[in-house]
Amino acid sequence: MAKTETPGENAQLKDIISHAKEYGFVYPSSEIYDGLQAVYDYGAYGVELKNNLKRLWWETMTRVSDNIVGIDAAIFMHPTTWKASGHVDSFNDPMIDNKDSKKRYRADVLVEEHAAKLENEGQVEKARSLTAALARLLEAEDLAGVRDLITNEGIKCPISGTSNWTDVRQFNLMFSTQVGSVAEDASTIYLRPETAQGIFVNFLNVQKTARMKVPFGIAQIGKAFRNEIVARQFIFRMREFEQMEMQFFVRPGTELDWYQKWADTRMRWHLALGTPAAKLRKHDHEKLAHYANAAMDIEFEFPFGFKEVEGIHSRTDFDLKSHQEYSKKKQQYFDPEINQNYIPYVIETSIGADRLFLLTLCNAFTEETTEEKSRTYLKFHPAIAPVKAAILPIVKKDGLPEKAQEIVELLKYDFNIIYEDAASIGKRYTRQDLIGTPFCIAVDHQTLEDNTVTIRHRDTTEQERVAISELHGRIAEATSFRRIFEKL
Amino acid sequence: MAKTETPGENAQLKDIISHAKEYGFVYPSSEIYDGLQAVYDYGAYGVELKNNLKRLWWETMTRVSDNIVGIDAAIFMHPTTWKASGHVDSFNDPMIDNKDSKKRYRADVLVEEHAAKLENEGQVEKARSLTAALARLLEAEDLAGVRDLITNEGIKCPISGTSNWTDVRQFNLMFSTQVGSVAEDASTIYLRPETAQGIFVNFLNVQKTARMKVPFGIAQIGKAFRNEIVARQFIFRMREFEQMEMQFFVRPGTELDWYQKWADTRMRWHLALGTPAAKLRKHDHEKLAHYANAAMDIEFEFPFGFKEVEGIHSRTDFDLKSHQEYSKKKQQYFDPEINQNYIPYVIETSIGADRLFLLTLCNAFTEETTEEKSRTYLKFHPAIAPVKAAILPIVKKDGLPEKAQEIVELLKYDFNIIYEDAASIGKRYTRQDLIGTPFCIAVDHQTLEDNTVTIRHRDTTEQERVAISELHGRIAEATSFRRIFEKL
Repeated sequence: MAKTETPGENAQLKDIISHAKEYGFVYPSSEIYDGLQAVYDYGAYGVELKNNLKRLWWETMTRVSDNIVGIDAAIFMHPTTWKASGHVDSFNDPMIDNKDSKKRYRADVLVEEHAAKLENEGQVEKARSLTAALARLLEAEDLAGVRDLITNEGIKCPISGTSNWTDVRQFNLMFSTQVGSVAEDASTIYLRPETAQGIFVNFLNVQKTARMKVPFGIAQIGKAFRNEIVARQFIFRMREFEQMEMQFFVRPGTELDWYQKWADTRMRWHLALGTPAAKLRKHDHEKLAHYANAAMDIEFEFPFGFKEVEGIHSRTDFDLKSHQEYSKKKQQYFDPEINQNYIPYVIETSIGADRLFLLTLCNAFTEETTEEKSRTYLKFHPAIAPVKAAILPIVKKDGLPEKAQEIVELLKYDFNIIYEDAASIGKRYTRQDLIGTPFCIAVDHQTLEDNTVTIRHRDTTEQERVAISELHGRIAEATSFRRIFEKL
Repeated sequence: MAKTETPGENAQLKDIISHAKEYGFVYPSSEIYDGLQAVYDYGAYGVELKNNLKRLWWETMTRVSDNIVGIDAAIFMHPTTWKASGHVDSFNDPMIDNKDSKKRYRADVLVEEHAAKLENEGQVEKARSLTAALARLLEAEDLAGVRDLITNEGIKCPISGTSNWTDVRQFNLMFSTQVGSVAEDASTIYLRPETAQGIFVNFLNVQKTARMKVPFGIAQIGKAFRNEIVARQFIFRMREFEQMEMQFFVRPGTELDWYQKWADTRMRWHLALGTPAAKLRKHDHEKLAHYANAAMDIEFEFPFGFKEVEGIHSRTDFDLKSHQEYSKKKQQYFDPEINQNYIPYVIETSIGADRLFLLTLCNAFTEETTEEKSRTYLKFHPAIAPVKAAILPIVKKDGLPEKAQEIVELLKYDFNIIYEDAASIGKRYTRQDLIGTPFCIAVDHQTLEDNTVTIRHRDTTEQERVAISELHGRIAEATSFRRIFEKL
């Protein structure tokens, strides 16, 4: 069990990781036992932020659209599911061991890193031809050829410094476990490597019981697991992660129109949440997966470069057809409009909840330096901020704490609220900036006289005087999901 | 992989299970592959109901109480966690195999079922002495003695009909898997059998980063996994299930007061949700677990009898002390009020989200027969009903669908709404009754004239005329969590 590492991180990412830990957003899992590699826990503010993002996505799918419903399928599924989906046979990474150090590496990553090193040293042509050779060998599934490439190039293990390599072998990324007792009825099952299959195997159940008509979608949020060998970049690539996937079932032949529509809709969603257009881009896949006839990623510019946050895939009828074949149960829909039976085609939108969380944290993390002072704050959209308002009596006497508590009572059932009466008011503002609370509500002596308070705004630090009776409406308006939905 | 079975079910439970499947609440997992035993998926209405219950619990904990915050720890944890918690060594069931049928049984269940059979046959004294003998042997961990009891009593395997038994052996209920590559750095880890330990190992992280002062609580919702040999009664005992746990950290010596307070608070919560007092009872544990100095269950009268829904446990300082010992990291809190360091004591409230779901479904399932007709409906509290309102134009012409869509737009961002225009209005009411929608809103020709609609109430089937402008407020009032919170 190695200490949690984050290779590939840079200075800004380091700042964000340490902020996330210090202010209760993300901790390494089982930290008192020195952590579990590539697994993380969400703290008090982290879980609120993540829940808000999940709920926003869920309501976008199931409420803004009138033809999408949700499900929650189990992590455990019948093992034949993963035969049908192709994961048992081909969800692999090519691995190679160094015989001296006993360390294991992804063979393709070894070659890519070597090519990058050559390029840095000015051998650009050499690097390119190496990368192209690797792509050809992987395409042909020529593992012996990949090993030859590694030995011929003299690529060495960074630990032992030798080129004493084993063969390249495929390593399946699914976690397996035994269900049932160890007697004759025990079976090997897998932790699902994606949530999508839970939707496909339930396609007819949902279509019939919720009486859906094609085109319609099924949305799901849930954990998935991949035994990544090279897990890195904080919560960007974890072994346990959460997906938010929506499978949209359409009439065959119309899938590319829907594909385009969903790609645009999802991009608008990211923009509506406040992500700057300059930090987002679409990236069409050059090489399509075996099940797809079109695919793109929505990429975000993380501190470590543009990387995938969400995938939009036109999955054809691959999955339903394959489940029909393996289960011997028809996966057809009767379309009353054209009086035909068919297996629907599928457009998938798939986003990692943890990646969206990291995007949100990177976007929000703001360090401002003026002549007088420097300030760090998290500029979350109010609708997803973990804490909506802090209620702060300016002194801990004269009945101000009691008055502040009355305001807490007014707001706490509808919004996540913090009450704090220790330390100076300035320190308490700073503290709220660091966890991204949009509104600080100060209760002072004037409050006792005229029932007004000061709202201090996180992003501008400006203050305004507002009647207590207006607070609920003001916070509701600023934090409502509706403001985001209306931009879609 | 056996077909999904539910031994121990009775007629009413059967009706509920088939209703749950037919109307989109719960399906057997991977049903197209004939299911995976003791695993279930939640359908379109099931997931909404479950999410509402989870959110109600979460907000009760983190908002109604001002000294409880949440976390979301990973399912994967460092394996030493489960040494410290005692699960590696003692989370076992005693199992015995029949050598002829090759079937495996829980040894204690075999004896208990035999005793029940004797009691039914009138041999009450014999049955009681057998049960008492079993309890003594289990207490003494005398597995050979349990086997002797089985063979001496002539207990037979129901499949083979023979008494040809193996030894009794302990069988650990945790699922294990391998993390990392299969080279030298792979490790065995477990799927967590309870969420509580994710809270304990993060105790200091949360206390410090959210600046909590004892007494305070940490709440968590998440999946847990147990390789149950005898899984039964629908979603009551599953191999994959979801827990909602809150650990409340208190000053040593005050724990029994807090234990009583939490037991009362949680009981009020169930009553506020509309569960009849006659169907709930507290049940004190006679035999305490090794970590507890007081424990009780809140039991609900399911169709198969009074069974545990929630546990309230005074866990002492067992867990934190054990983690301190195994991690060599102090798990102490400095209490400024008494100027002392100590390991806090813990009161746990632990409820199964799936059991709460089943309780809710059993409570709601209503079959009414009058002279004219019989009616089945789900009498959910409006705050947790999966669909809040159905918007129904009485005919599919004359501009009524368009008018109805205007109402959908008014409501859909804030409430889960269904629009339906096919079939007769009576059939559509029936359909909404079956999924428990509290309000059916009928749009008719009068609506076009005076902007009023008919609200038809699920439980009474009474109808009333209401202005469209009042709808949002009426539904918001009826479905607000605040109505439940105010009863706590």
